[in-house]
Amino acid sequence: MSGNTIGRLYTVTSFGESHGPALGCVVDGCPPGLELCEADIQRDLERRRPGSSQYVTQRRESDTVQILSGVFEGRTTGTPIGLVVHNEDQRSRDYDKIKDRFRPNHADYTYQQKYGFRDYRGSGRASARETVMRVAAGAIARKYLAERAGIAISGYLAQIGPLTLAPVNPAAAYDNPFSCPDPSRLPELEQLLWATRGAGDSIGARLTLRATGVPPGLGEPVFDKLDADIAHALMGINAVKAVEIGDGVAAAGQKGSEHRDELSPDGFLANHSGGVLGGISSGQDILVHLSIKPTSSIQVPGRTIDIAGRPTEIVTTGRHDPCVGLRAVPIAEAMLAIVLMDHYLRHRAQNADVVSPTPDITRARR
Amino acid sequence: MSGNTIGRLYTVTSFGESHGPALGCVVDGCPPGLELCEADIQRDLERRRPGSSQYVTQRRESDTVQILSGVFEGRTTGTPIGLVVHNEDQRSRDYDKIKDRFRPNHADYTYQQKYGFRDYRGSGRASARETVMRVAAGAIARKYLAERAGIAISGYLAQIGPLTLAPVNPAAAYDNPFSCPDPSRLPELEQLLWATRGAGDSIGARLTLRATGVPPGLGEPVFDKLDADIAHALMGINAVKAVEIGDGVAAAGQKGSEHRDELSPDGFLANHSGGVLGGISSGQDILVHLSIKPTSSIQVPGRTIDIAGRPTEIVTTGRHDPCVGLRAVPIAEAMLAIVLMDHYLRHRAQNADVVSPTPDITRARR
Amino acid sequence: MSGNTIGRLYTVTSFGESHGPALGCVVDGCPPGLELCEADIQRDLERRRPGSSQYVTQRRESDTVQILSGVFEGRTTGTPIGLVVHNEDQRSRDYDKIKDRFRPNHADYTYQQKYGFRDYRGSGRASARETVMRVAAGAIARKYLAERAGIAISGYLAQIGPLTLAPVNPAAAYDNPFSCPDPSRLPELEQLLWATRGAGDSIGARLTLRATGVPPGLGEPVFDKLDADIAHALMGINAVKAVEIGDGVAAAGQKGSEHRDELSPDGFLANHSGGVLGGISSGQDILVHLSIKPTSSIQVPGRTIDIAGRPTEIVTTGRHDPCVGLRAVPIAEAMLAIVLMDHYLRHRAQNADVVSPTPDITRARR
Amino acid sequence: MSGNTIGRLYTVTSFGESHGPALGCVVDGCPPGLELCEADIQRDLERRRPGSSQYVTQRRESDTVQILSGVFEGRTTGTPIGLVVHNEDQRSRDYDKIKDRFRPNHADYTYQQKYGFRDYRGSGRASARETVMRVAAGAIARKYLAERAGIAISGYLAQIGPLTLAPVNPAAAYDNPFSCPDPSRLPELEQLLWATRGAGDSIGARLTLRATGVPPGLGEPVFDKLDADIAHALMGINAVKAVEIGDGVAAAGQKGSEHRDELSPDGFLANHSGGVLGGISSGQDILVHLSIKPTSSIQVPGRTIDIAGRPTEIVTTGRHDPCVGLRAVPIAEAMLAIVLMDHYLRHRAQNADVVSPTPDITRARR
Repeated sequence: MSGNTIGRLYTVTSFGESHGPALGCVVDGCPPGLELCEADIQRDLERRRPGSSQYVTQRRESDTVQILSGVFEGRTTGTPIGLVVHNEDQRSRDYDKIKDRFRPNHADYTYQQKYGFRDYRGSGRASARETVMRVAAGAIARKYLAERAGIAISGYLAQIGPLTLAPVNPAAAYDNPFSCPDPSRLPELEQLLWATRGAGDSIGARLTLRATGVPPGLGEPVFDKLDADIAHALMGINAVKAVEIGDGVAAAGQKGSEHRDELSPDGFLANHSGGVLGGISSGQDILVHLSIKPTSSIQVPGRTIDIAGRPTEIVTTGRHDPCVGLRAVPIAEAMLAIVLMDHYLRHRAQNADVVSPTPDITRARR
Repeated sequence: MSGNTIGRLYTVTSFGESHGPALGCVVDGCPPGLELCEADIQRDLERRRPGSSQYVTQRRESDTVQILSGVFEGRTTGTPIGLVVHNEDQRSRDYDKIKDRFRPNHADYTYQQKYGFRDYRGSGRASARETVMRVAAGAIARKYLAERAGIAISGYLAQIGPLTLAPVNPAAAYDNPFSCPDPSRLPELEQLLWATRGAGDSIGARLTLRATGVPPGLGEPVFDKLDADIAHALMGINAVKAVEIGDGVAAAGQKGSEHRDELSPDGFLANHSGGVLGGISSGQDILVHLSIKPTSSIQVPGRTIDIAGRPTEIVTTGRHDPCVGLRAVPIAEAMLAIVLMDHYLRHRAQNADVVSPTPDITRARR
Repeated sequence: MSGNTIGRLYTVTSFGESHGPALGCVVDGCPPGLELCEADIQRDLERRRPGSSQYVTQRRESDTVQILSGVFEGRTTGTPIGLVVHNEDQRSRDYDKIKDRFRPNHADYTYQQKYGFRDYRGSGRASARETVMRVAAGAIARKYLAERAGIAISGYLAQIGPLTLAPVNPAAAYDNPFSCPDPSRLPELEQLLWATRGAGDSIGARLTLRATGVPPGLGEPVFDKLDADIAHALMGINAVKAVEIGDGVAAAGQKGSEHRDELSPDGFLANHSGGVLGGISSGQDILVHLSIKPTSSIQVPGRTIDIAGRPTEIVTTGRHDPCVGLRAVPIAEAMLAIVLMDHYLRHRAQNADVVSPTPDITRARR
Repeated sequence: MSGNTIGRLYTVTSFGESHGPALGCVVDGCPPGLELCEADIQRDLERRRPGSSQYVTQRRESDTVQILSGVFEGRTTGTPIGLVVHNEDQRSRDYDKIKDRFRPNHADYTYQQKYGFRDYRGSGRASARETVMRVAAGAIARKYLAERAGIAISGYLAQIGPLTLAPVNPAAAYDNPFSCPDPSRLPELEQLLWATRGAGDSIGARLTLRATGVPPGLGEPVFDKLDADIAHALMGINAVKAVEIGDGVAAAGQKGSEHRDELSPDGFLANHSGGVLGGISSGQDILVHLSIKPTSSIQVPGRTIDIAGRPTEIVTTGRHDPCVGLRAVPIAEAMLAIVLMDHYLRHRAQNADVVSPTPDITRARR
């Protein structure tokens, strides 16, 4: 177990490198009887696919997923679902010039020191290509959550470099290549991206996620708090440097009388908490923010060392995203789906027959 | 497994409620031969103890820890270490008036809905008293890390409500009741706390943690990234709403040429990454920030519902911290120690005999 | 995680040594709302207690269990249940003469080589005293299984040394100190035990366990087959050398036409399988047999080495069971209960809403 | 997590059905730097391959394994190793006549009741084809254990139906299709198999496994005893009904003075314990026996029910092994390798720097 499995009951075990033959994963624990076909998964994969716009890496991958097991006559059987996506457009020669030196801000050096050597082709396992399988496994979780629990997950770009984007129309985020929730800002975004690319540089981003329809009760109250597991899942995405729940860092500056979400028979009167209290979902929307660092592979020359420890310089050419945040929304949504699915099953295992005398005040709003 | 165990190899399983007979935990996986006695643990417990200053809850607990197993002739044996702390100053009558209604911003409502009923005395398992055992288990990890791996962990208060505190003298944080790293600001802090308490309100905080001496190679590169596991451990502390690694949320606004930490034969030239690249420690200091919401138990009246769902009002009296952040530094340090200890063992399991041709550029600085 | 936790959803984490201050465990994952008090657990502890007859060790322990957490107003809360039993009758001086040499057939040597040193007092963690907590944790599982699922677990002594005992009256096993299911054989058993003790020797045993009322569907079909997890749990009891399901070793000599249990609308027509098919419970009774080696601590002198590797001789005096099998029935029952409880919750997590068109043919008989 | 993962540190997660597109697994936790290519795995797969002799199923599968990840320039990288074998000779029509009725002694009925429906083609996930991936994952473990730890694993057929086979020449077991360790008995075996097949029946078997070169110290002393984990791994193989360590069931009839393995400076003087004491390897050979029931798919007509619960009769035609034990030796060896590999890493994680003053008395013999 070198950390390539996530989840306790809905578990996803993934494998694959950027320039190996294929990426794949095993989804274990999915309940039986869910209608499932490749198209259900392909839809989400399409959203994170490279080459999908001029603002992202131009690597050409169809990312066609194949279901190898666990589905019979169009329904999940309860046995593990094996998924595979074959790599098609490896251009390993791009990496010859950096195979003996370490990109700053990249996993190159740490892989080298952990394992003694590394697969330098396209960053190997450290490549964002690894996230293909997160999206695939998340797509199954989303489908189950939507159909059986009424839970929906969405996200949008909330900030990119200096630009902060208000969620004027969150649904619009699915219609533009920036996941931008305010279509009026698209020209600014385009300009920023072109300028960044032109400078051979990259730029950071901040995303917001929302899960609606989550019933109260999901999450374990101590170490595996729902928000703790969300933080684990999202911080585990490449390049993420911060995870916030609800008001997040702003909570540090607030008073108790300001932060608290009062209760009424018709629901909570605010949502500073982001839908989690004491590690357990409250029935409100789950609100999460994640901050993503700028891509490490840039064309601005930088100081570094080579494999023998000698000082040298590096410039990364090849095909890279100027802002990894642009393709990160479906990945982050998928990880949130995996966590919610896992806790949905965990809660059911322990508390399937619990009846509370207290009404669910959020039911009407969910 | 309802989430009361943390760690894969250095595992901590805890139990206990605020007003039950005792709190305890089992530390499993500690290597044998570590010198250990109760005083080694008591030292850290003392730092989070209630009643230790006038700015924290006045509950009177000696928090005397007893080692029940796993130590023989002053050394750990390799078998599980059982720890227990008996509760001494339960005043359950304080809770009679809130037992049938839910404090906003508190786990009261979510426990009720998850389990169908709840131990309302002192918040039961949701109480910050649960963190006693985090500190105890963390103390053993810290001792091992310090003695066998040269790793040291420290922390301080970086913000409290509107006041931001610069780390002018981080070591001074251990000498004042606020964990304040800038002694010149103490009068401001005292004033803020008195004002907050006088208003019957509470206030949020932000902490900074640092681990020095961490060798390169700790962490698993995909789901169980070192920073992901740190995020899980820290977000799982009561009231934490955000976890940031290195530059954290600021990274969203940075350029790649700005964020990256260049490498030289003498170490990294900056530490924006917070000591983690690709989920694996780089040998730099680990830097983490956590934001804590204001205490939910306040005396400002608030709207809520009762157990039958009827609207009502609530005022929390009793003994509460006006700022939970003040006692959180030792807790957060302990959780970071547990994660580092766990990954120290995980790394050793897989990579004990790895030799890299690349020199460890951080060795001299560590 | 050094293997002191068992179960995925109903997890038991135990600690404690023979001559330390106390033994304890944490039961995590128990559903809320189960009525529970110390007496519910004490009843089972009484059955494995030392000193309960003249045929077992004369160590005097009341084995009084204390519930430290997880129960409020007489019901489980869903949070971890902490249990503790204090050791009362340690006579560590008995072990002075063997502290520097290794008893053959005992864990003395292997602990020494694994950990570099060992707690020699009463065998430390390797003592059968460790099983106190198995029985305690199993008692909670049994209560839940009995009350919520109609599952009952029983066992008896099927063989002791040369004597094979037929289950003439399995219920009678609870009324004699040998767990003997055929009261007519008691004089033979007494004679055998006295002869064995008189010779300073010990003797092996074989037990049979039965679980009735188990619904079809428990168990995971590949690695965590129900019988595989039963084998793990029972082989993990001190001194067990074989675990058999249903016909067990006899199946190796059978034909397919002989072994198979045909199906009818009124149930299965035989039970060679022991209630498990393809790793999943069939609804028939679960039948398990375990074989236990003779106690290693005997007074017959034997050759061994000392801590420096020099040849020497050993005689074990002190208080030991001439047949560990005699007190093993409640321990084995407890472990079976823990496994069934765990799989009951695991099955519910994944398959809570499954409906099969096929009738449960065993329902009438269960 | 529906039990398709085994191991804590060397973890194997498998997927795939008998008549699906492919079988596969993910091996996570393998140390980096191990030389590995497909041929290393293919060698072991060849030994369990269907159609390899006239005494086993005539299904024609090349069982060609493909490494999809985790190996770079001929060495393992430390990242997960994805393996896949495509199914080639599915003849699903064979199953049309049994798709609506349940084979006695088979997983048909229990899958139906657990999941509500089942993949009836070739038994789906319950097919022995699932074991392909056990052998593949085990092959990697074996290679590591042999090269880095000097551990070798072998096995042979010890009994088939009424015939007991003495290990006259265990190495010869690798040269005949029965894994028979006594070549003089081959004519008897052939005769028995032909007679069994002629009668449309099947027959059980018992296997013996041996691991040599195992150092003292592997195994965790309480729940995850080395023998408990071996029992779990072997009982989890299809059709296994009993697992014995060392003297196994015979230990129930022995005296302590007879069973114990005395120690000398030159090693143990006997090996009744099968190489495990107190759950920890002693340095002696690990000896394990497993008993396998006769195949359930036979041509002798039997009573059963259909999917609606109505009584009916069944005859299984198609391609089946008359004795599943014949192909089970490589599978059982693989599972033992996985367990030893896992505990090798677990032991190293906790005890990498332990030094015992006591010499390893088995070193010379290993």
